[in-house]
Amino acid sequence: MNTNFKELLAKLEKLDYKNLYHNDFLLTWDKTQDELHAIFTVADALRHLRENNISPKIFDSGLGISIFRDNSTRTRFSFASACNLLGLEVQDLDEAKSQIARGETVKETANMISFMADVIGIRDDMYIGKGHTYQKAVAEYVNEGYQDGVLEQRPTIVNLQCDIDHPTQTMSDMLHIIHEFGGVENLKGKKIAMTWAYSPSYGKPLSVPQGIIGLMTRFGMDVVLAHPEGYEVMSEVEEVARKNAEKYGGKFTKINSMEEAFKDADIVYPKSWAPFAAMEKRTQLYGEGKFDEIDILEQELLAQNAQHKDWACTEEMMKITKDGKALYMHCLPADITRLSCEEGEVDESIFDRYRIPLYKEASYKPYIIAAMIFLQKVKNPVETLQKLLDRNKARLVR
Amino acid sequence: MNTNFKELLAKLEKLDYKNLYHNDFLLTWDKTQDELHAIFTVADALRHLRENNISPKIFDSGLGISIFRDNSTRTRFSFASACNLLGLEVQDLDEAKSQIARGETVKETANMISFMADVIGIRDDMYIGKGHTYQKAVAEYVNEGYQDGVLEQRPTIVNLQCDIDHPTQTMSDMLHIIHEFGGVENLKGKKIAMTWAYSPSYGKPLSVPQGIIGLMTRFGMDVVLAHPEGYEVMSEVEEVARKNAEKYGGKFTKINSMEEAFKDADIVYPKSWAPFAAMEKRTQLYGEGKFDEIDILEQELLAQNAQHKDWACTEEMMKITKDGKALYMHCLPADITRLSCEEGEVDESIFDRYRIPLYKEASYKPYIIAAMIFLQKVKNPVETLQKLLDRNKARLVR
Amino acid sequence: MNTNFKELLAKLEKLDYKNLYHNDFLLTWDKTQDELHAIFTVADALRHLRENNISPKIFDSGLGISIFRDNSTRTRFSFASACNLLGLEVQDLDEAKSQIARGETVKETANMISFMADVIGIRDDMYIGKGHTYQKAVAEYVNEGYQDGVLEQRPTIVNLQCDIDHPTQTMSDMLHIIHEFGGVENLKGKKIAMTWAYSPSYGKPLSVPQGIIGLMTRFGMDVVLAHPEGYEVMSEVEEVARKNAEKYGGKFTKINSMEEAFKDADIVYPKSWAPFAAMEKRTQLYGEGKFDEIDILEQELLAQNAQHKDWACTEEMMKITKDGKALYMHCLPADITRLSCEEGEVDESIFDRYRIPLYKEASYKPYIIAAMIFLQKVKNPVETLQKLLDRNKARLVR
Repeated sequence: MNTNFKELLAKLEKLDYKNLYHNDFLLTWDKTQDELHAIFTVADALRHLRENNISPKIFDSGLGISIFRDNSTRTRFSFASACNLLGLEVQDLDEAKSQIARGETVKETANMISFMADVIGIRDDMYIGKGHTYQKAVAEYVNEGYQDGVLEQRPTIVNLQCDIDHPTQTMSDMLHIIHEFGGVENLKGKKIAMTWAYSPSYGKPLSVPQGIIGLMTRFGMDVVLAHPEGYEVMSEVEEVARKNAEKYGGKFTKINSMEEAFKDADIVYPKSWAPFAAMEKRTQLYGEGKFDEIDILEQELLAQNAQHKDWACTEEMMKITKDGKALYMHCLPADITRLSCEEGEVDESIFDRYRIPLYKEASYKPYIIAAMIFLQKVKNPVETLQKLLDRNKARLVR
Repeated sequence: MNTNFKELLAKLEKLDYKNLYHNDFLLTWDKTQDELHAIFTVADALRHLRENNISPKIFDSGLGISIFRDNSTRTRFSFASACNLLGLEVQDLDEAKSQIARGETVKETANMISFMADVIGIRDDMYIGKGHTYQKAVAEYVNEGYQDGVLEQRPTIVNLQCDIDHPTQTMSDMLHIIHEFGGVENLKGKKIAMTWAYSPSYGKPLSVPQGIIGLMTRFGMDVVLAHPEGYEVMSEVEEVARKNAEKYGGKFTKINSMEEAFKDADIVYPKSWAPFAAMEKRTQLYGEGKFDEIDILEQELLAQNAQHKDWACTEEMMKITKDGKALYMHCLPADITRLSCEEGEVDESIFDRYRIPLYKEASYKPYIIAAMIFLQKVKNPVETLQKLLDRNKARLVR
Repeated sequence: MNTNFKELLAKLEKLDYKNLYHNDFLLTWDKTQDELHAIFTVADALRHLRENNISPKIFDSGLGISIFRDNSTRTRFSFASACNLLGLEVQDLDEAKSQIARGETVKETANMISFMADVIGIRDDMYIGKGHTYQKAVAEYVNEGYQDGVLEQRPTIVNLQCDIDHPTQTMSDMLHIIHEFGGVENLKGKKIAMTWAYSPSYGKPLSVPQGIIGLMTRFGMDVVLAHPEGYEVMSEVEEVARKNAEKYGGKFTKINSMEEAFKDADIVYPKSWAPFAAMEKRTQLYGEGKFDEIDILEQELLAQNAQHKDWACTEEMMKITKDGKALYMHCLPADITRLSCEEGEVDESIFDRYRIPLYKEASYKPYIIAAMIFLQKVKNPVETLQKLLDRNKARLVR
């Protein structure tokens, strides 16, 4: 086992990731290639320790604060697991139980909860133009608090999903792909189809497709974004994907055909999302308090949605992928035809066939989050990881 | 102090409880006599350590997940205390704040929350035929996840109350009895009256009376179940009690008279519960969405209930117990006449007289839960307990 | 760094604070001067340890229970931080999710949640005559439980705000003042103006102004309480302030002019609060279920309130303070004119100028709470603090 761990440390030693330290993780495209690889490597190293019953606890006390402005199960538990693994206790900021409604500023709240906070994980994905802005504000305010001597330590921010990106999801997806394909070096030229799929519920966040095209275009892959007309994602993120493909020697294509996307794909990621323009309009109406118009908009969106029930990941569609065996991926929960809804994103037989890989895909998230925290809080990661191995403290005395 | 502890380890060494390891605790009657005694012994050993300021923490990280589908104070705090004592952090799955409503399957949720979960405690006692089934499903799904390599460790399930049994309650009750009577060897022939008692609220769970007759019939006791006609418990559990009595040399009697039950009883456990048949009907109506009929049913049940106000644990009734001094027991909270309600399960003077033993009865629950977790997660319990004693880490540096 | 720490231990050694041990912290005026200084000193010592990356964890397991009967952000996080720093896991008693509504007594609940509780923090500030009474009851009941052998350890109570006092706030305020003025010896004769200020919301708790006059009068300061007629605080607390001033060589004055209070003040603490008499009446109406009359009362109070918009901490008012540079204090969140409301307690420019000191003021609270817990649970504080320094366990392995 120590051989594998040594290799991970050797890999880490060659990377330049010093800018992760005392920084935040908001968008994958803010980070260098080396920084992303450092996170993948540390995630693997932490998993290695835990799977060998060695505790990677680096904190003897400290809080990990979570702010969930939308419901969450898997991200909530992934964040809790990551914090706990490293020794932080999760304290949830339940805005309903706080005094925030009384007109307190974000700056004040951010500082007030952070006196002993090492990390703040935030999910805020409900309104276009809001989530990322809020996360940046919190990051800026706590950094200011640290600089001003108000906070003893600098709480690091981890984006647990915003309106633009969902880095803990897409990084887990990527680590899953790396392991499924036996290494990042095998991804060159592999075709991944990030495609829209029909779901009876309208209005799912855009952060996953955006995050996928913004990340997967960095590893030499052939990234295809497919959706019906009208389901465009943020053009800024498409621009990121285009530039990535150019810079890192990959490909980024945008099409309106699911068939074309699935054709010979090595990986398919069919998933429903809301049209960006409509979400932008909804945010605007919401801000203006025009709730009647929101209702009308939602009816229109549902009608528009219903026209694309043929965008589904069926067995027939799977047959046209590479050898009929593309890796099926999803951030979960999926809308499964005739299981969770009448007509949905994917056939039950496909979902069942890929259930174990799908669950494994999800299993990376606690380690990805832990790696982000680790690299943002630990000055000498290689040295500290070696120390943890040598300390050899049992996670469970059995 | 170490003498006492040595005796506990010696007792444990003689028991065969290897099947507790990597298993779940759902029903007491799934377990062998040795397995139950192992849990009592480890509960006492953990209590011994804590009372001598020695930390029995065996986990350096890990989550204890709680799922409460009904309100709870003492079980919630008992579970939290048990997890904390062993080093697990409690993470509550608040189904209202999760995405479960979106049609996610139990299998998926169970796996998604379990990547770093060592134990899952579940209370689901609201609907007949549901709770135990749900717990079994979660147990099966996480075990499957473990076998499939999705989960690094196998989360063990602890039944914190279902529609059939309430093992953490009844095992605490039993440990209380063992200590009150100076050892399990003194219980032979002791009469315990598990009797129905009137409470203005209708519909209390059946898990306590069922759990009591299913457990107490295994220690050579004379177990009497008494209730008005119409307040039958599940016949399957009566069958368990009957067979237990036969197998373990005790007695199980079912009668319709509280007086007869109290007569010469060494222990009385008077408590309200709902009629099984009615609860079954309510579950069915609920499933069919017939809420009007549920209202009618509840009115009928309240009327039926009101006919049995004479089923009360009064001072007069206590006089007919063994020397007028039977041990009064209750899972709490009790409905106390003229304190919590006009007419209730027990006279205030009796409750007051037994307040300290009642609180002590409750105090075993954290240790019983901790012992269940310990024995389900630790491969070599005797060795590990000895290690904890030798390690001698202060719970509180004072 | 060890020099500073040595000085703190030397200071602590000279104080008599043995009565804090195994006691509760409900009101500052229940405590001796030495006891308060011991808390300030231990708060500084714990901060010193943490700021030098030395973990002051004294508990290897144990629960810190919080009961919040009113919303809270900063106190909730301060309590969580304090518990976590010392090694306790916070378990919140959410009364909505408990069985308490079923008529359970406070005595029973208090014991049932306390089997492994080392501290119980309570905020109950909504109704005059209720909060302190409730806290005293819980303290008495768990102490009784400990004496009766029901509880293995004695949970200590920390008042996180009641209807009478807010000691964790005012002690933090005081520690902030001590550090701002370079030591308690420099406070002699310093003028502090605790004044009412207008806020559009009516009905803020009286615990802060009461706590301030009850505490600040013990350090030789010239304490001025100013408010419009009708905004009297509890007369019992005014009496405490008067006696304190006499005993400790300070001054306590009560006036109806904000100008007079601000004149030459070294410290100003302008803050809205509700009139005591009105709050008493509201509590009475609430008890009688007269909700219509409560509505009428609230309308009257709002009308009365609106007459005093001139009670505001403006730049002009600040000019009349000592050198125009009084230390501006607030428990936060403040009602800031034209930021959080049309007309409020303070001008935005003032609040902005004092933002950093205000945040620092708040930053003492986790340490004050931790010091209270520490001194109430640790038998030999000097020895234990020295042990923590010598143990030199990293809070964060970096």
